[in-house]
Amino acid sequence: MKLFKNFFLLVGFLLSAFSGNLFAQDPAISNLVTSVINVQKYERAIHIMAMLILGFGFLMVFVRKYGRSALTATFLLVSISLPVYFLIGWSGIFHFPNEIMERLIFAEFAAASLLITAGAVLGRLKMPQYLLLGVLFIFSYMLNEWLVLNGGLGFLTPNSFADTGGSIVIHAFGAIFGVAAAIFLTTKDEQKIPVESNYVSDRYSMLGSMVLWVFWPSFCAALVAPAQIPVTILNVIFALCGSTLATYFTSVVVRKKISIADIANASLAGGVAIGSTCDKADPVTSFIIGILAGILSTLGFAYIQCRMQKGLKFVDTCGVSNLHGRPGILGGLAAIPIVNGLNPINQLSGIGITIIIAVVAGLITGKIVSLMGKMLVPYDDASEFLDAE
Amino acid sequence: MKLFKNFFLLVGFLLSAFSGNLFAQDPAISNLVTSVINVQKYERAIHIMAMLILGFGFLMVFVRKYGRSALTATFLLVSISLPVYFLIGWSGIFHFPNEIMERLIFAEFAAASLLITAGAVLGRLKMPQYLLLGVLFIFSYMLNEWLVLNGGLGFLTPNSFADTGGSIVIHAFGAIFGVAAAIFLTTKDEQKIPVESNYVSDRYSMLGSMVLWVFWPSFCAALVAPAQIPVTILNVIFALCGSTLATYFTSVVVRKKISIADIANASLAGGVAIGSTCDKADPVTSFIIGILAGILSTLGFAYIQCRMQKGLKFVDTCGVSNLHGRPGILGGLAAIPIVNGLNPINQLSGIGITIIIAVVAGLITGKIVSLMGKMLVPYDDASEFLDAE
Amino acid sequence: MKLFKNFFLLVGFLLSAFSGNLFAQDPAISNLVTSVINVQKYERAIHIMAMLILGFGFLMVFVRKYGRSALTATFLLVSISLPVYFLIGWSGIFHFPNEIMERLIFAEFAAASLLITAGAVLGRLKMPQYLLLGVLFIFSYMLNEWLVLNGGLGFLTPNSFADTGGSIVIHAFGAIFGVAAAIFLTTKDEQKIPVESNYVSDRYSMLGSMVLWVFWPSFCAALVAPAQIPVTILNVIFALCGSTLATYFTSVVVRKKISIADIANASLAGGVAIGSTCDKADPVTSFIIGILAGILSTLGFAYIQCRMQKGLKFVDTCGVSNLHGRPGILGGLAAIPIVNGLNPINQLSGIGITIIIAVVAGLITGKIVSLMGKMLVPYDDASEFLDAE
Repeated sequence: MKLFKNFFLLVGFLLSAFSGNLFAQDPAISNLVTSVINVQKYERAIHIMAMLILGFGFLMVFVRKYGRSALTATFLLVSISLPVYFLIGWSGIFHFPNEIMERLIFAEFAAASLLITAGAVLGRLKMPQYLLLGVLFIFSYMLNEWLVLNGGLGFLTPNSFADTGGSIVIHAFGAIFGVAAAIFLTTKDEQKIPVESNYVSDRYSMLGSMVLWVFWPSFCAALVAPAQIPVTILNVIFALCGSTLATYFTSVVVRKKISIADIANASLAGGVAIGSTCDKADPVTSFIIGILAGILSTLGFAYIQCRMQKGLKFVDTCGVSNLHGRPGILGGLAAIPIVNGLNPINQLSGIGITIIIAVVAGLITGKIVSLMGKMLVPYDDASEFLDAE
Repeated sequence: MKLFKNFFLLVGFLLSAFSGNLFAQDPAISNLVTSVINVQKYERAIHIMAMLILGFGFLMVFVRKYGRSALTATFLLVSISLPVYFLIGWSGIFHFPNEIMERLIFAEFAAASLLITAGAVLGRLKMPQYLLLGVLFIFSYMLNEWLVLNGGLGFLTPNSFADTGGSIVIHAFGAIFGVAAAIFLTTKDEQKIPVESNYVSDRYSMLGSMVLWVFWPSFCAALVAPAQIPVTILNVIFALCGSTLATYFTSVVVRKKISIADIANASLAGGVAIGSTCDKADPVTSFIIGILAGILSTLGFAYIQCRMQKGLKFVDTCGVSNLHGRPGILGGLAAIPIVNGLNPINQLSGIGITIIIAVVAGLITGKIVSLMGKMLVPYDDASEFLDAE
Repeated sequence: MKLFKNFFLLVGFLLSAFSGNLFAQDPAISNLVTSVINVQKYERAIHIMAMLILGFGFLMVFVRKYGRSALTATFLLVSISLPVYFLIGWSGIFHFPNEIMERLIFAEFAAASLLITAGAVLGRLKMPQYLLLGVLFIFSYMLNEWLVLNGGLGFLTPNSFADTGGSIVIHAFGAIFGVAAAIFLTTKDEQKIPVESNYVSDRYSMLGSMVLWVFWPSFCAALVAPAQIPVTILNVIFALCGSTLATYFTSVVVRKKISIADIANASLAGGVAIGSTCDKADPVTSFIIGILAGILSTLGFAYIQCRMQKGLKFVDTCGVSNLHGRPGILGGLAAIPIVNGLNPINQLSGIGITIIIAVVAGLITGKIVSLMGKMLVPYDDASEFLDAE
């Protein structure tokens, strides 16, 4: 009996000693690894910030006399949208993740979508109007995010809609919202004024485009689990390679000579379209999606935009419907055959809800923002800046 | 007894087997995790390098005919300061951390401070003078770093002074040193020559500003422990959002139209001011600090700089006193109410020591560098470059 | 006996419980750490992508009227080379690593080498010719990689040739291939046309150069084990500091005034030359290698290139032989004294094989590409772009 008792005492001691080791050491290591993984999310969050500020900012510098305004508007839109996203998130109206880096990345996604919207009305808003646009947009964006991604109102359960890199909720939403808002934010005069670019502004635009191209994999993989990141990255890069090559060939075939605006914009369409399936597709499929998106986007710039603008009587300054709108929808639809076990009804519902909210919220926002007046001279820094040439 | 003995043998075997597992496997993993954390420091070190070379470099391209010189000076100042920091560090005169990535990051902090100093005298030094300035500056900077952060001479014990992201030791030190040096490095003629910018150089300047904005969180979080990094990042981003919005509003109110120079510079003041408390504050406080810093910096560019230059008879080419000087001091002082358990005497002593050393060393350095002569034509690439326009 | 049995049952239970903990928890952690290390490779892969697209792209914008073409060619060369590298890799003709991020990084190395080759013939190819050049180049590059690094045909066993950061297989190979190809891709007229740059394009060129400088450490350390990364990074940075300082001094001594083209190019020579020994050298040796490479490269731009072009009747548009050719060979040779236990015969064989393949494959490729015709007007965007100025 004594032996028995001793035995249990000893085992108990060993058990506690070992479990002490196991539960004191391992948690320390695994907490550290969790922190390290969060820091890696931060790395991608910074890449996305480079896309927002440098990428979108310089891509929009192509408008000839509007460079200062485009860059300043970018700064202001990012600076208003991130705090507003957190403010609404803290309020608890919609969904808000627990972890700081996830919150930041979702807020950056919203800012990206806002900058797409801003591209549609670029050159025709004063700075305070961009700020108001930003506040109204972020609210609408979070409403849609909640409905489509987080099970808000119960239309779609979480994870039943495939959109990891945001083809639909970021790109298509931003583009459609922007086009809808532009309908109330384009005057008759502005429909006749050509949006001029020049040789120097072109190269700035390519700088923005290249920053977006380079960091796009981090955008799509921002919230992907570490083990799935390599394949996600590769898919995004293959999609971008596909759209870049397709843009060149389509531009030459359609226009005889290359349009640098096609190269700067449509080359990115593969990144837009791979968003929904970036962690599920394979590289060859991604390459094909990229090619299709590049062709679709270039044809948009060459043919569709002009007719759409005349029909709906608006101007889409940066052609966001060509780069983010149609390729975004393409990407969302491509998820149906690509993603195993995806319910097509759910995917189509998610796309449908997004389109409806973008159109309605865009029209309302456009109307409200238009009440603040219009610029004296559109597309010109001199309206608001000192010493503009 | 035999049973008892067997039991202990077995337990001994199990113990050694388990402890073997625990002490052979865990160290391997934990060494690997340490390496991984070091590689993450490297990621931030590279972000800082982007700020030094691309950020400061292009921010200083705003001087119209001095773009080549500004970029070349940036290259040379970084290339001289990093090896000199290591050389002095190896000599053991001051403090030098053990770990390679920490050494590199501290050296980069010194280079950042040097580039701030160089901004004050930009356009009025020849390349060999920038190099001499660099060597003398790094020595002075390391002296201050040793006194204020590492307990040198015993004024302040390590960690008794709050300045994680360097509002005081990096920004204020660099700005004050630069202003002091400028007093001996400004000729009477140069006080009358306006520092011209133009439309193209403005946009380069915005490029530099945006690179600084984007990577600023990595600067402040460079040496923060992994678990504190998310909150640090968020604080820095909120501070930058605050200063960017405040800069726009202040610039419009004060000047009627927006000055692009205000946007490019004062938008960054939040990053400067949040440095001392970036890992201790919360996002809302950080946003408020950013707003105050943005207002202070814009008012500096609009009103204070001009009067200060006339009073002290010098030219601060880039206005570093507005961007790095006053907002840096603001940030250092803000630590007193914000950081729990901080002794105000220590914080004020650290600020005081930094100011004294910056003024004295700056004046001496300015005098020494001025002995090497002056440029034939200030603010013009043609002084030193082939084929300058 | 029953006690004995109970004892073993209990121990067995504890053993399984503990081992369950050890073998269920530890593999989870170590798998996670492996994923985290892969994600860190991805971080470096993205830095390399920034070098390829932004770095090489803008470095080549220095040709005055050829900016759009240079940027578009960069986009197309990257977009063709990555998928082609994977396609040949999947085919199994040569060597192909197992891990996705390693594959991507090796593919990016090939793309970097191709962009070096393209620099030699820049301004004299139409876009479809760049694409054909890309396909033929990648095949030749992978042949050389297989022979020199992966034991192909048994000339060199794996790891017997020191070239971690690719001084030989990336830089020297690309430069020599490009010069060889240029011999068939330069017309008589083109030998007489000066390659013009101007003030605006110069600053874009500095932007490209700076992007390359900043991210070069990630290029060299891309595939280095985590524990060796800090020292590798430091070596690369010291080498770049050395070449930057040496370039300034050599340029001033040789030309009286500074040539901005020297600064933009030769400053990077330290990065080229440290490639072979980046993980084996120490910082001081690296600094010296950088200085030697900077001098060698600047003298190349000032004296050697002009004579070589007249002798061989070709034009090396970007001077890649000065930046990547000779400094690359210097770096490969420097490994002989620096790397412990390196067999000089192996190192020289690797260099020799690389040179032979580059010359032969470059000449053949140049001849084939030349069959597709020539540009109407060299060095001018108007050949292929709409609305070029």
